Amino acid sequence: MNVIPCGSVATIAAPEKYFTGRVLQTPIIENDEPSRLRAVMVGFEPGARTAWHTHPLGQTLYVVSGAGRAQSWGLPIVELKAGDVVSFAPGEKHWHGAGPTTAMAHIAMHEALKGVHVDWMEKVDDEQFGA
Amino acid sequence: MNVIPCGSVATIAAPEKYFTGRVLQTPIIENDEPSRLRAVMVGFEPGARTAWHTHPLGQTLYVVSGAGRAQSWGLPIVELKAGDVVSFAPGEKHWHGAGPTTAMAHIAMHEALKGVHVDWMEKVDDEQFGA
Repeated sequence: MNVIPCGSVATIAAPEKYFTGRVLQTPIIENDEPSRLRAVMVGFEPGARTAWHTHPLGQTLYVVSGAGRAQSWGLPIVELKAGDVVSFAPGEKHWHGAGPTTAMAHIAMHEALKGVHVDWMEKVDDEQFGA
Repeated sequence: MNVIPCGSVATIAAPEKYFTGRVLQTPIIENDEPSRLRAVMVGFEPGARTAWHTHPLGQTLYVVSGAGRAQSWGLPIVELKAGDVVSFAPGEKHWHGAGPTTAMAHIAMHEALKGVHVDWMEKVDDEQFGA
């Protein structure tokens, strides 16, 4: 059993290369094998979002607070609110983030395949975001 | 992309066979392959707890609210509070639940191995719980 007390893990600013706007990440768990589970709390300020990306084994988001949005490539933007759960299939190109005027926080859960849990692509521009 | 709106999944009472006291479960995700991720929100009323059990690929708990406790076989009971993260190794015999007078809710994250994510054992009696 390993206990990570609340407040003992530093929150970091998500890297500008893969995110637009101010995004804060607090790690929850980062396993490799045999458990491949990785989870992170992510807080997006209004207008902030990930770049387009895929996950080799997919991803599930549990929206903890606020209201935001997500989109899969070629599909309409979907509005998200606290308590919603969103899943993306392995290899599904997508993004997620806050709303234009509202913050959103979610727990992101995904699994690493051979140590890799995400493949980053181009940023989501303002037109795509629909601000 | 699959969105499960908040309020669209029924909360169920956890089965008496594997839990002591009143425990409510709200499913978040239940994958099999290639993603093996399973997650569930679990709320324990004061005094409620799981039976002893193991997970084939381990488990991570993110305490969402309240204060509770957990224990691995042969080790002391550990107190848990909101925001704490607890991980159990594959095959590690353990239990988790509320405090004697305090409710506790956590998100449980684990992975299924050949469709099985938990192996249940005997219940945690009052002496073990330390009520």
